[in-house]
Amino acid sequence: MLDDLPLGFSAGAVACAFKKEGRDDLGIIFSDRPCTLAAMFTKNIFCAAPVQVCKQILAAGGDVRAIIANSGQANACTGEQGLNNCHHIQREAAAMLGIRANEILLISTGVIGAQFDMGKWDKNLPLLAKSPGSRDAEGFTRAIMTTDAFPKFASRDVDLSGGSVRLTVMAKGAGMICPNMATMLCVAITDALVPRVEWQRMFEQAVNNTFNRVTVDGDTSTNDTILGLANGASGVAAATSADYDLLSQALTEILAKTAYMLVQDGEGASKVLHITVEGAKNDGDAALAARSVGNSQLVKTAIYGGDANWGRIINAVGYSGVSANPDEVGLYLCGIERFRKGQPVNDDMEEELARQLRKKDVEIRIILGSGPGKSGLLASDLGHEYVTLNSDYRS
Amino acid sequence: MLDDLPLGFSAGAVACAFKKEGRDDLGIIFSDRPCTLAAMFTKNIFCAAPVQVCKQILAAGGDVRAIIANSGQANACTGEQGLNNCHHIQREAAAMLGIRANEILLISTGVIGAQFDMGKWDKNLPLLAKSPGSRDAEGFTRAIMTTDAFPKFASRDVDLSGGSVRLTVMAKGAGMICPNMATMLCVAITDALVPRVEWQRMFEQAVNNTFNRVTVDGDTSTNDTILGLANGASGVAAATSADYDLLSQALTEILAKTAYMLVQDGEGASKVLHITVEGAKNDGDAALAARSVGNSQLVKTAIYGGDANWGRIINAVGYSGVSANPDEVGLYLCGIERFRKGQPVNDDMEEELARQLRKKDVEIRIILGSGPGKSGLLASDLGHEYVTLNSDYRS
Repeated sequence: MLDDLPLGFSAGAVACAFKKEGRDDLGIIFSDRPCTLAAMFTKNIFCAAPVQVCKQILAAGGDVRAIIANSGQANACTGEQGLNNCHHIQREAAAMLGIRANEILLISTGVIGAQFDMGKWDKNLPLLAKSPGSRDAEGFTRAIMTTDAFPKFASRDVDLSGGSVRLTVMAKGAGMICPNMATMLCVAITDALVPRVEWQRMFEQAVNNTFNRVTVDGDTSTNDTILGLANGASGVAAATSADYDLLSQALTEILAKTAYMLVQDGEGASKVLHITVEGAKNDGDAALAARSVGNSQLVKTAIYGGDANWGRIINAVGYSGVSANPDEVGLYLCGIERFRKGQPVNDDMEEELARQLRKKDVEIRIILGSGPGKSGLLASDLGHEYVTLNSDYRS
Repeated sequence: MLDDLPLGFSAGAVACAFKKEGRDDLGIIFSDRPCTLAAMFTKNIFCAAPVQVCKQILAAGGDVRAIIANSGQANACTGEQGLNNCHHIQREAAAMLGIRANEILLISTGVIGAQFDMGKWDKNLPLLAKSPGSRDAEGFTRAIMTTDAFPKFASRDVDLSGGSVRLTVMAKGAGMICPNMATMLCVAITDALVPRVEWQRMFEQAVNNTFNRVTVDGDTSTNDTILGLANGASGVAAATSADYDLLSQALTEILAKTAYMLVQDGEGASKVLHITVEGAKNDGDAALAARSVGNSQLVKTAIYGGDANWGRIINAVGYSGVSANPDEVGLYLCGIERFRKGQPVNDDMEEELARQLRKKDVEIRIILGSGPGKSGLLASDLGHEYVTLNSDYRS
């Protein structure tokens, strides 16, 4: 059963009608034993109350037992009352679950700037506390969906020196998605036993190479959180440097798969842009150019319309702030060279390009000719559906 | 006749079918005597061939006599051939107009990355050279429109110490509009006599306070150019510092009016967002926050939908990179305070806000509480029409 959670973990979900009736919008991940925590958070200065709570737990360095997640309300920009509501939820749930309040992590997603409806929380927490039992990743994932078109989860087994362990990732995210870090909630759990410092390090490395390299709309949200819980229930420890490498690689691969799903499900998106920049002065410059292209409304709408208007890509490179000599810059679109050393080439390939642009995955390769720097980015296109979804998100 | 050009200037236009049949797409502004030139250009590193030509003329410091402007083809990312085509056009037109090649400025707008169709230019330049005669600002303005819904021009008279002079501004721009500088072509002409250094200085100041404070889609184009021509045909000189102040103020006011028209006509835009940021650490920080809000797709779609989803505004401030203490930040939307010192206020004003958001002009006032810095920005909203226009711009 590939979608089974790692050993020692169970999940549950209930419907609270935080935003809409009749669908699960409150979920829990519960571990039968203490977990080592790794985590990364949004860089938005208005980080939501639940993000502040998780940051404190991470800083304290203790073990954790549960994650409670809700959709429909972000509990962001809610000041002291928002924080007090988090602490109330932790206390109540802790008593019901028989664990400590500071062993419970909170993550939230939804409308910014509204206080929690605590009546709904108080009514549903007892049901939530009784809900864990499922070993399936999908139920929890569905409870944290907002504008997501499909639930995003993946599992894989990793053979370490001492035996096999499992990694499961469950994520939400469709809009407000931009690097630093990709706007979303994400939970990665494993039954491997991993030392805290190494777990955090492999987490940060994996996130920087995956979630921090995607963009849907350039908006970085108040609630971005990625949590990693390792509970050791498999009895298998990541003990050698070869084990670390294996687990680290598996984590990067599974997060990359999830990050792709995020972009694929970008709000109103029909295509995934695979942007690579090479020959930049340095990696930072390459990332700057890639983001400028990936966030350009004009590039995104052109790709949406299947229009090979490659000049807009060069234009976005040109205002990105990157250092480059225009006479050295080149561009391949869908594998076809259209710009070489500052001049258009292959004008006769327009029809072939139009054919290529009908595909779901679009490759954009930019050559700057200024140095060894390179970077990549996954981006969504921009269509009518994005506007429809976001012009009446709250109503 | 308020739309008459300043003395000594005349305009003309012809239809070349650069992109579509049957509408004027090549225009000329001609002065019967030499003009002092002021100019500002795009900061995009891929500045178009005509921008390179204008930059050289400005740097040489000589006088100019004419501006030739086309729509339909940007002549950007066209390398050496693009530049050669510009020089060919200057030479041919100079011979026909009886002036020198380096007295002719060129501005272009349209699709990036295609070479000029020189056959069409050679066929139509003789007609263009004979076309000046009109004293009306509208014809030339129509010739430089691309996705513009209406022509953008304005005139006003200014009473200087020695008599009255006229200022006329003609502009195009609807998409690829972002500060540094607002993507567009703009020509400002006057029959005042102004010393070169003062003319350039008042120009830069006026542009920084107007065109550099608007955004439609965050894309800064390869072709942005603003040209100022002062020919002295009124016989009135800007001679005193009071004259400079009067002319400078009039220039700022008329460019502000034109900049507002640009945003009002933002591609697919239905509303104009008037964003002000105050209490920033410094003016630069204030501008950073304002641009982040003005370029946020989520803010722009919410306003388009008439949804008072103010949390998205705070969110955009939060990831702008601005330094601020979240507990000091406040927000007024349409004059109604919704966020004060990090907490939501006036939750009961939602209905009134929804009513206010039906208006064409939407005021967003952000208070950072960190210092004396302030800045303003005009931004368009983002609707279905933007996607429609830009997903099939070339076809």
